[in-house]
Order: sequence, then C-alpha cells, then structure tokens
Amino acid sequence: MEILTTIAQCRDHRLSDRAAGRRVALVPTMGFLHEGHLELVRRAREVADSVWVSIFVNPTQFGPHEDFESYPRELKKDAELLAHEGVDIVFAPTTEEIYPRDPIVQIGFSGLERKLCGTDRPTHFAGVGLVVSQLFNVIQPDRGIFGQKDAQQVLLIRRLANELHFPVEIIVVPTVRESDGLAMSSRNAYLTPQERTAASTIYATVCKARDAIEAGEVCGEAVRRILITGIRSEELLELQYAECVDVETLERTEMISGSVLLAVAVRVGKSRLIDNVTVTPSATAEGTT
Amino acid sequence: MEILTTIAQCRDHRLSDRAAGRRVALVPTMGFLHEGHLELVRRAREVADSVWVSIFVNPTQFGPHEDFESYPRELKKDAELLAHEGVDIVFAPTTEEIYPRDPIVQIGFSGLERKLCGTDRPTHFAGVGLVVSQLFNVIQPDRGIFGQKDAQQVLLIRRLANELHFPVEIIVVPTVRESDGLAMSSRNAYLTPQERTAASTIYATVCKARDAIEAGEVCGEAVRRILITGIRSEELLELQYAECVDVETLERTEMISGSVLLAVAVRVGKSRLIDNVTVTPSATAEGTT
Repeated sequence: MEILTTIAQCRDHRLSDRAAGRRVALVPTMGFLHEGHLELVRRAREVADSVWVSIFVNPTQFGPHEDFESYPRELKKDAELLAHEGVDIVFAPTTEEIYPRDPIVQIGFSGLERKLCGTDRPTHFAGVGLVVSQLFNVIQPDRGIFGQKDAQQVLLIRRLANELHFPVEIIVVPTVRESDGLAMSSRNAYLTPQERTAASTIYATVCKARDAIEAGEVCGEAVRRILITGIRSEELLELQYAECVDVETLERTEMISGSVLLAVAVRVGKSRLIDNVTVTPSATAEGTT
Repeated sequence: MEILTTIAQCRDHRLSDRAAGRRVALVPTMGFLHEGHLELVRRAREVADSVWVSIFVNPTQFGPHEDFESYPRELKKDAELLAHEGVDIVFAPTTEEIYPRDPIVQIGFSGLERKLCGTDRPTHFAGVGLVVSQLFNVIQPDRGIFGQKDAQQVLLIRRLANELHFPVEIIVVPTVRESDGLAMSSRNAYLTPQERTAASTIYATVCKARDAIEAGEVCGEAVRRILITGIRSEELLELQYAECVDVETLERTEMISGSVLLAVAVRVGKSRLIDNVTVTPSATAEGTT
C-alpha cells in the first residue's frame, strides 16, 4: 500500500492503473476509520482492481463553529487498518494541496442542501459537493463508494455525478451498526459511557417509526410524532430534526404512498449524530389502510 | 471527421484516443461558427493529437427572456467548416442528452458571476460553469480552448478548472476581429448594415481607453468615462456596462497600478455585443504620473 500526499502523485498513479487496465474504486473518508468505513473498503474491493481511500478532513464542509479543528485525526492507525484490508493507495493530502487558496467556486443543489442536515449546517453540502468533485477529478475513479448512513449526502452526490456526467458509478453501502444498533460514526468517539448508552435510542426510534409504516401507517405527521417522541424519551438526546420525507425531493410526506426517508439528527454531549432508514410501504400494508 | 451525438459514443471514442496515447483538445462552442472559432480550432490542433469541437446551444446559460430559441443553428455548414480544418470529432448532443431532467446542481463563483455580464445576465455563468463541467466530464480533454473575447468566462473557467482540479489545461486564444476591429461573434449576424457600421465604435472606444492608460492615465474613473463617452457617441449603441476592473477580482479599479480589464457590453439592435482588452500599465507610464 502506498500513501500519496500530492495531486501530481495521484495523476501519475492513475495513469499506470489505466495503462494496466485496472478499474479504480475510491472510498472518500475523513479518517479516524471504523468498521463502517472498512465495509466500504470491502465493497470497493469487490468492484475494482485498485482500491483507493482518501483521508482528508475537508474544511469547507464544516461550519465556522463546528468541530473541524478538533475532528479526530489518526493517520498512522488508519493506514494500518487499510493495509490490513488490502487497500492499494491512500491519498492523504494537506489542506493546502486541495485548497491552495480560498476557493470561489461553489456547488449548490437548488435548496436540497438546506433541508434535513442543511438546516443546522447550511454550508455543509456545498463543501461536500466541492470536495467530492475535487477527489473525482484528482483520482478519476471508475466507482465511488459511499455509506447509506449519510442519506442526504448520497442523494446529492448521486445528482452531482449524474448531472455533471462524471464518469463515476456511485455505489452505496448499507449502514454498519454496533450490536445495539447505533450507527457507526467517528463522532461516537466523543461520547461518555452514559451518552453512548443513550445513543442506542436513536436507531431504536427510527425502527419503531419504520415498523409503524410497515404495519400500515400512512400519515407522515404521525410517523414524525413517533420519531420525535422516541428521541425525547431519552433525556441525554437533544433533538435537531426528525423527518419523514420523500426520498427524492426531501419534502415532508403528508400521505405515505411511495418510498420515504426517515431521518433524525440529535445532539448527544459533544457529538451530533445522524441516522436514517428508507421505507417502502408494502402493497399489503397499503391495501389494509 | 465523425459527428457524435451521445455521451456513450464520446466515452467509447475517448477510450480509443487514450489507448492510442492521443492528447485531446476540446473547443466548446454553441455553433454558428465564425473565424474566431476556427482560430480556437487551429490552436487546438497545435496542442493536441485529437481535436474535438462541441456544438451545443446550452439552455442553462440563457436567461428566460434571452435568445435561446432564436440563437442561430446551422450544423451542416458548421460541420463543413470543421471538416475543412481537420477536426477529428464533433460532439453535437441534443438538449435531452445533456439534461435528461432539470438539473438541481448549481455552480456559483462567490459573486464574480454577478459582475460585468452577470449584472444583466445573473444566471449566465452558472449555466456556463455547468456545461463546461459536463463537457469536461464527458470528453475528458487534456486541454480546453477558450477565446479571450469572453474575458469573464475565461476568468471563471480558469477558477473552475483549478479549484475543482479538473485534469484539463485551459488555453486562451486572443480575440479575432473583423478588419474594422469588431470582435467576431455569432450575434454579429443579427446586425443591420447600419448597426454593423456603428458596432465598430465598440473596439475603437476600448482602444482609446487602453491608449490613455498606456499614456499614463491612472484614474480608473477617468478611464471609465472614456469608455462611456465613446459608446454614447454612437447613437445606435445602447450602453449596458463599461468598466475598468481588476483582472482577478473584477472590482472597479480606483487607482490603476497593476493589470486591468477594460470591458464593455452594448446593445445594438437585436444583438448584445461585448468586447474587452487587458492592459498592464508600463513602468514608464507609471513613473511619469
């Protein structure tokens, strides 16, 4: 496994991958890797000959009062984990390599970037769109591997790749969870033991709302109430949002008829945690209502 | 010369160019080609083995009351001109091929897109950024060739390519002019003979302002007055803007010390015409003031 730090090195390596006819998959990460990331890497291995992982804590996706400075960084340990998974290339650039000066180019998503996580993080997805475009252009992967945990990110990156005609196939991997259901996240590391216990309520609540839809609930507001009540039942969780929305438009669903995204964000101690599931009501359940 | 209409065809062709080690240059156009475009093609020929010209009247760079529908289209004649120049590939997609549905992705430039031409055409450069990104991703050229006539476009495309790390070198070709100095433009075709004669005042005025700077004028407002007075001296010309701005920030220059862009836009009959020159005051001129 090689660790590259410059764009020029990436371009050279990409040329040799291409000359050898190797298909490249990229797993973009901000490092401090956990089992969820490794699942992405394993999926990459299945669909490519050369697996690249980028480790870059991207400043443009953090707001001014967020945890950019304190975001955990542990490149040496990350590299060991990735070497063990048989990764071919790690790209770990400095901030200056990606942003030699403050960028003026902005990526927008016609307002979809201000829904859900964008309510509290209004500039987040512009930064994500920017860095994913940059990484696609630097590494030119055939495939990009993303985790379903970041459902809104997945939606926007798919649109970015499709609409800008990036020659990259987007592959989405299901969320990896701890044994009690908590979605894996680098930010779980900030939790105290009590907060960690409380955090398991997040996924339990999302499941309860999903079960209600599968049992025939068609009222979006009723589903949202289940989410809100569930999160509020645990006093260490501070609700940021709890939504039942259309999977494409992210608009609140009044009457559930097609696939919906159940998505929540909570603050727990120093962490902001998110989770989601996509639910497609079964024909049977629809028929019974 | 081959004429391609689909993205899939472009990707296939690009693979064979790459396999053969051919460097590709792209000249993006909206068709209705004139000598200015052909100059871009000749420059492309000098810097690449395979010359691609795209012909696509991009709807997203036109405002709702602009000339998208009436913009002149003459693919057959364009193809003959390009074949004569030894172009390898023409990419002439339908609107639906590039935009299978209304895009949600937006490209912004932190306000630079609302200066100069963006004052009257507030969504123009977002559309330009979008289509250039799309063409770069579809064709994956090694070089992109642009004309200096669209100075603001050149500035923004350079920033787009640099900041998103597109693996494309941007090459800029000087403006090609008619014998009386009028910058070549597809929109010159809309002019009546009287309007055509009046239009020569545009470049004459820009030159007068340039000469003033070269003779030692350092007051940006004085230079702007020369531009405004010159354009207003011709009654068939309706001034849209006349500016003396910093070449990077496009902010109005108060005291000229480095390179400035002199840029004007005028309405003449049905046409909106633009022109510009970049001026770097000589050390001597600076010394004499």
